[in-house]
Amino acid sequence: MNTVKFDTIGQYLLNRLYAAGVGHVFGVPGDYVLGFYDLMEKSPIQHIGTTREDTAAFAADGYARCLGLGALAVTYGVGALNTVNAVAGAYAESSPVIVISGAPGVREQKDDPLIHHRFGPFTFQREIFERITCATAVLNDPVIAFRQIDHAIAAARQYCKPVYIEIPRDLVLAEGYPIPVTDTIEPTGSDETALSEAIAETMALLEKSVSPMVIAGIELHRRGLQDRLLELIERARLPVTATLTGKSVIAERHPAYLGIYEGAMSSEHARYMVEQSDLLLMLGVTLNEVDTGIYTAKLDPQHTIRAALNEVVISAHRYPRVALADYLNALVEAVKPSAAAFPSKPGKAAASPFPEPGKPITVNRLVDRLNRALGPETIVVCDVGDCLFAAIDLQVHAQSEFLASGFYTTMGFAVPAALGAQIARPGHRALILVGDGAFQMTGTELSTQARLGLDSIVIVFNNRGYSTERCILEGPFNDIGNWRFDRLGEVFGPLQGFDAASEEAFEDALARALDNRSMPSIINVHLAADDTSAAMRRLAEHLKSKVQGQV
Amino acid sequence: MNTVKFDTIGQYLLNRLYAAGVGHVFGVPGDYVLGFYDLMEKSPIQHIGTTREDTAAFAADGYARCLGLGALAVTYGVGALNTVNAVAGAYAESSPVIVISGAPGVREQKDDPLIHHRFGPFTFQREIFERITCATAVLNDPVIAFRQIDHAIAAARQYCKPVYIEIPRDLVLAEGYPIPVTDTIEPTGSDETALSEAIAETMALLEKSVSPMVIAGIELHRRGLQDRLLELIERARLPVTATLTGKSVIAERHPAYLGIYEGAMSSEHARYMVEQSDLLLMLGVTLNEVDTGIYTAKLDPQHTIRAALNEVVISAHRYPRVALADYLNALVEAVKPSAAAFPSKPGKAAASPFPEPGKPITVNRLVDRLNRALGPETIVVCDVGDCLFAAIDLQVHAQSEFLASGFYTTMGFAVPAALGAQIARPGHRALILVGDGAFQMTGTELSTQARLGLDSIVIVFNNRGYSTERCILEGPFNDIGNWRFDRLGEVFGPLQGFDAASEEAFEDALARALDNRSMPSIINVHLAADDTSAAMRRLAEHLKSKVQGQV
Repeated sequence: MNTVKFDTIGQYLLNRLYAAGVGHVFGVPGDYVLGFYDLMEKSPIQHIGTTREDTAAFAADGYARCLGLGALAVTYGVGALNTVNAVAGAYAESSPVIVISGAPGVREQKDDPLIHHRFGPFTFQREIFERITCATAVLNDPVIAFRQIDHAIAAARQYCKPVYIEIPRDLVLAEGYPIPVTDTIEPTGSDETALSEAIAETMALLEKSVSPMVIAGIELHRRGLQDRLLELIERARLPVTATLTGKSVIAERHPAYLGIYEGAMSSEHARYMVEQSDLLLMLGVTLNEVDTGIYTAKLDPQHTIRAALNEVVISAHRYPRVALADYLNALVEAVKPSAAAFPSKPGKAAASPFPEPGKPITVNRLVDRLNRALGPETIVVCDVGDCLFAAIDLQVHAQSEFLASGFYTTMGFAVPAALGAQIARPGHRALILVGDGAFQMTGTELSTQARLGLDSIVIVFNNRGYSTERCILEGPFNDIGNWRFDRLGEVFGPLQGFDAASEEAFEDALARALDNRSMPSIINVHLAADDTSAAMRRLAEHLKSKVQGQV
Repeated sequence: MNTVKFDTIGQYLLNRLYAAGVGHVFGVPGDYVLGFYDLMEKSPIQHIGTTREDTAAFAADGYARCLGLGALAVTYGVGALNTVNAVAGAYAESSPVIVISGAPGVREQKDDPLIHHRFGPFTFQREIFERITCATAVLNDPVIAFRQIDHAIAAARQYCKPVYIEIPRDLVLAEGYPIPVTDTIEPTGSDETALSEAIAETMALLEKSVSPMVIAGIELHRRGLQDRLLELIERARLPVTATLTGKSVIAERHPAYLGIYEGAMSSEHARYMVEQSDLLLMLGVTLNEVDTGIYTAKLDPQHTIRAALNEVVISAHRYPRVALADYLNALVEAVKPSAAAFPSKPGKAAASPFPEPGKPITVNRLVDRLNRALGPETIVVCDVGDCLFAAIDLQVHAQSEFLASGFYTTMGFAVPAALGAQIARPGHRALILVGDGAFQMTGTELSTQARLGLDSIVIVFNNRGYSTERCILEGPFNDIGNWRFDRLGEVFGPLQGFDAASEEAFEDALARALDNRSMPSIINVHLAADDTSAAMRRLAEHLKSKVQGQV
């Protein structure tokens, strides 16, 4: 008699992850997940150990933004619960991260024992993750486990959101029941009638319009539609701006590109162009507080076509069940090729030479200088605070090479997310912009980059405290300890460190950092406490009124 | 006409916290909680800024274990969600921590906008905390806000568990409605009949018993009953052991004390004494996996009286609604004073002199040496891993001076919890035992101790990786980067650092650390990767079978 041998549940999960493009899984081991780690070790998937679990989740988020799917594996309770903020951030920012949590075995759970890492009923962990993921699965039944795994991975891809998969440790090596190949999840297609009506109306409006333009948003990135956007822009010769969260969805040196639009916080020119346009084609734009410049954006719905992930809205009517990708593809086919020139952009006043001898460094000059250091292989990974606002003025060369927690704005995102980005794109180099406060939260994850010989460059915007808050409401609670970030190599080298208070020192440090491709570099840039970007000052002014309840 | 001016909601919360003994609140500011921070700054409560929010929660937990209540204040989403693991740990370990989270204003929430730090419906954050606290309150109604605050603080004290209080930022300065003084929460008293019956039965059993003894547990600490325990022991001349989580609930140099009992992991003598006893008085003992030595404890219910927080169990029958405090108080009164000698303890083989020239340091010798360094003002704060098992052999001088995440076993507890303990007890000094892996998780919080001039001593048990897991299942995933912990002072001094691979080097470092009372010290102790405590080896042997599903 032949016995058919099926995959184990753990093996099936690893196979499906690998088939979906996940070549690396981030995380910290722990006894409830050790069996799964052991299987992973024997699989083609590589484990990337991080120092903490939340940084593993940020790294998986950065990886997912680069490759379309990321994953982490952690232990029950103490591991998984440490990732809640980072996973909530991936949810808010639409990044498809797969959270794999070990768990006590099904047989262990039966007698309801008080075992280590337990904090309540065994269902509670899943219930917490139900609130920060688009799908959860507890693999406690071999009959349906494979199907659950397929559903979870498909949901992460379809909704671009995190999912949660829990494996009781005594089922990692249990054989699952194979499922029919036909029973896979396909994204639901668009409603063909709605799609063609939406395209027809769009074309009619475009033909009448004298100043049409595009606002490109983050969802184009999440759906991998950057090339289609480029085709549309170039074929129809449409000028384009991006939202802050959508920054770099189009290469920022493209002649059609006018900069970031975010209401009152935009550059004069981008703002003028958007607000005078008689037809705004908003593609994949989320209308959140950040992208609307705290609701200062002037976007008249009567002159707006908004294509979101699953619907198109024109003026006051909706075409539901029209997928962004289908709409954009159809639009590229429909528009007539044009040979018109892109509108000219205001010339930028030539900056004075950098470095100026003896001159202390400022945010504006720092960003100007970094702008010239960007190459086609640079991925800018930006933390929250003034570095994010200052980075608006960076011109990223290629598409999708600006990563930030732009909407959820969680501090401590950049260093671990850059780890994920560098692992995802081995030929690229991360330029990490981070404040001193944010670096103190998760910056020691740089030790993992040092251990792996990755060549990220970290620029610490060191203004000795929480500057964004300082602008809103000053108090001693905004002061923090002053770390000598440049000396971190003493603790976990190989890592090059530099201290820069002047333009000359910065120039020297940057040159040496760019030259060294065998280890990470960190430049501790000393900024005056009151030296903030203009964008942040405008923002803080607006936020100030809200703090004391005068909303 | 006179207008009566009531407290604002923020002010009332601060007043009640202060009245309840909370003199310090830990946390990181953020715009949704800035108004509350501003009020705090003007109050007698002192804010202690930490580098991250999870470490603020661990610090508040350490503070609560010392003073009976601790608190942290964080911003919405990115702040509060970062504390989930630490708060779940406080729940599992019964530590009354008050989590105060800012939130978007009630008026801001009305239009359901996509504002920063948002990750889902505004109710989700509370729903997550409902699973890791014993009470939650969202202060969005001035009519009931004061009452909600009183209930939450009372619940934290009554159940010794964390609570969650959310303040929408536009209500921080809103006046609340005062509540009648009579409407305060009093802990429910014991059932008098049940109490006296339980005492009578206990006394009858005690009189018949020839070898009665006490096992003292963690709940005595949480109810502040250490002095009453001491009275009982001394009056009735009862020998006593403690559980691992209850370690130091009685001063460990007391002649009645026999050491830690945790089943097969106990010392031979403690185990013999407990398991031969014909009457075990288990006071405030939680029967979790850790305290039972992974269920190897041999505790015959027929010879056991178990007094838990709210009930007494004798053999197979229960006396419900008998509070631990009432039972212990009544028992102290009831027992007859005895003049019997405490049973003698086996003499310990005299250790050879320390340091032995040229000898590499080992876990056993390290703990022996530390034992002699303990003083009456030393609080030992211990992380998870081999340092926890090794610490079983430390003899803590005074009561309640051993803090650890002994049951929930979350890595990264010790350094931030010690910050809380040192703030709570200014005359004391923390001796922090931590592994290299755990230190990499939260150890940089030591920068806060450096900033505040606190004099903790950190002993890093550096065995280059996750040793507990190495014992269970070896794999490259247990390796971690090798930090030069002793050089951290370069990054965020004032901090004394030492490197010790030999007994001589350790002796020298320890002496210099003990001498320096003006800053923290850290000693990076290099241990062989296979040098683990005997207790851990026994434990790992037991855990190994579970990892691959052979439960």
